[in-house]
Amino acid sequence: MTSPLSNLFVQISINFQLRAYKMQALENDAKKVARLRENDVKKETLLRKRMEQYIKSLQERIVKEIESIDGKKFLIDRWEREQGGYGISCVLQDGKVFEKAGVNISVVSGELPTLAIQQMKSRHKELDPSKGPFPFFAAGISIVMHPHNPHAPTIHMNYRYFEIEKEDGSPLSWWFGGGSDLTPSYLYEDDAIHFHKTLKEACDKHDPNYYPDFKKWCDEYFYLKHRKEARGVGGIFFDDLDNKPPEKIFEFVKQCGDSFLESYVPLVKRRMNTTFTANEKEWQQIRRGRYVEFNLVWDRGTKFGLQTPGSRIESIFMSLPLTARWEYMHVPDKNSREDKLMQVLKHPNNWV
Amino acid sequence: MTSPLSNLFVQISINFQLRAYKMQALENDAKKVARLRENDVKKETLLRKRMEQYIKSLQERIVKEIESIDGKKFLIDRWEREQGGYGISCVLQDGKVFEKAGVNISVVSGELPTLAIQQMKSRHKELDPSKGPFPFFAAGISIVMHPHNPHAPTIHMNYRYFEIEKEDGSPLSWWFGGGSDLTPSYLYEDDAIHFHKTLKEACDKHDPNYYPDFKKWCDEYFYLKHRKEARGVGGIFFDDLDNKPPEKIFEFVKQCGDSFLESYVPLVKRRMNTTFTANEKEWQQIRRGRYVEFNLVWDRGTKFGLQTPGSRIESIFMSLPLTARWEYMHVPDKNSREDKLMQVLKHPNNWV
Repeated sequence: MTSPLSNLFVQISINFQLRAYKMQALENDAKKVARLRENDVKKETLLRKRMEQYIKSLQERIVKEIESIDGKKFLIDRWEREQGGYGISCVLQDGKVFEKAGVNISVVSGELPTLAIQQMKSRHKELDPSKGPFPFFAAGISIVMHPHNPHAPTIHMNYRYFEIEKEDGSPLSWWFGGGSDLTPSYLYEDDAIHFHKTLKEACDKHDPNYYPDFKKWCDEYFYLKHRKEARGVGGIFFDDLDNKPPEKIFEFVKQCGDSFLESYVPLVKRRMNTTFTANEKEWQQIRRGRYVEFNLVWDRGTKFGLQTPGSRIESIFMSLPLTARWEYMHVPDKNSREDKLMQVLKHPNNWV
Repeated sequence: MTSPLSNLFVQISINFQLRAYKMQALENDAKKVARLRENDVKKETLLRKRMEQYIKSLQERIVKEIESIDGKKFLIDRWEREQGGYGISCVLQDGKVFEKAGVNISVVSGELPTLAIQQMKSRHKELDPSKGPFPFFAAGISIVMHPHNPHAPTIHMNYRYFEIEKEDGSPLSWWFGGGSDLTPSYLYEDDAIHFHKTLKEACDKHDPNYYPDFKKWCDEYFYLKHRKEARGVGGIFFDDLDNKPPEKIFEFVKQCGDSFLESYVPLVKRRMNTTFTANEKEWQQIRRGRYVEFNLVWDRGTKFGLQTPGSRIESIFMSLPLTARWEYMHVPDKNSREDKLMQVLKHPNNWV
């Protein structure tokens, strides 16, 4: 049905298609921004707006499901950022199942400080600090859940969409980032396998390289260099993802977000009523200490937040456990269950 | 008895005396180092050796006194640093009075990494990173004590002597640093006054500017920018102190070290048996959380240690409390005792 000439054209253009698609998507978004500035309608068609709507509805779904497991209600705070934007923080503290569970979204915009541009420069060549500050937009969801029971694992999930604009409002740069990782105090291999399998399924629907690449990235990112140990049994992590059309990556991110409850709820239901000893609780508290160490010493997001004027400390620190413990020279007995976890943290496993 | 000519010489030379004294002290030390390399005698005359002996004997005295208060013995570890030097860590954990008390000394030497030189460059102009790495020597004592009772304050003290050598072994640069600060969970003005008065008396014996200058420096250093609050009621802090002959500063540092027990023991004895409620204990745990935040996010020493290869993590983290707590959006009731502490942390006081 197509001529040989048009076939050839398809062959040639295929190499440029991805780039063109991305450029066009950016231009479309830019045009949409421009249009919106004249006429504040059809907001829902903009990617940034749809990301905002998506994380809002995901937050609602997750809060509802976790409340049904715990029995206690989340405390919900909506806050405004002086420099532009808002957030909704949902925190459940001292519940029946959860010591602390937080589900935050934030949708912020404003001027990206020169310092932040310099930090991003190595990953985003298009950012010229001398031409800044640039207007930016960021929308993200961030979740951390610490159950009481030492046999039930801690979970973390975070997905964010970032845009940097040129002066005329057209996007100079955009990307997605995020991931999800599991931090048990006691190793249940079945749990780690279920968690990774769910994430792999979500990834595989979009790109066969996503799971292996992002699993590796996760092991590297959630690593406590000063302890020479991983934070937990990993998961997936990626940042600066912009090598496909934004709509495609948005679909992938939604798939990951949608898989949260499936990846975690079965594990917490399975372990939340396991009987435990005082020693097991103490071990969990020591592991919580490592969680604090990672977040305060290494986590880029936390560090960035703490040094950014106008950021909401209470929302950043929602990720910290309710309680933690630091014992001097605590080393688990050889071949104990605690030691078994440590072996996996020292030598990351391939779970699927 | 002296001629007018020699009197004149004294007048002229007085301006140069301080500088000459310092230069000579450095040269003397350099000569001593050289001599020692030929003949390993008279080690005790070297400042670095005397600093080492001083912190060792101070460690012994403090450990003995704290053991007599607590009733439990310190765990004593001597460790060797692969790259050069050693340390002695004394830690008392879960005692009768103290949740955790650590008294560390370390005497380390080796090559100062270029990164460390670059960080020090702004304060030490004589360091040219292109000429490094330089051999260095550092000897210090570091103390943190967290009592169980929420009415008894946490104390921190640290004094260190640092030398950077030229290739021929003569000192290129040397300085002292350190200080001591008090972190109560409940404000007892008498305690803060006693603490500051003891430090002021130690300072005043050496220089009338020391206490006011170092009190201010302490308020600035032990400050949690992300919380807009001080860590505690302050004390003294100084760094890069080299503006007097080294022997003079060493005398001052010894005076400060010697005042530790006097500054703290009366306070802990006064408060260790005060009855307290579960709410007061919880408030202490929240304040412990802030202590962890300061040490992991802001403290230069901790950051430096975590990023230095071969440093002993267990000794660095000895400063962390045994237990800590992070509650979402915890704000003390207006005019409560907890709020009274917060007011002082927001607006540092002059205690003497």
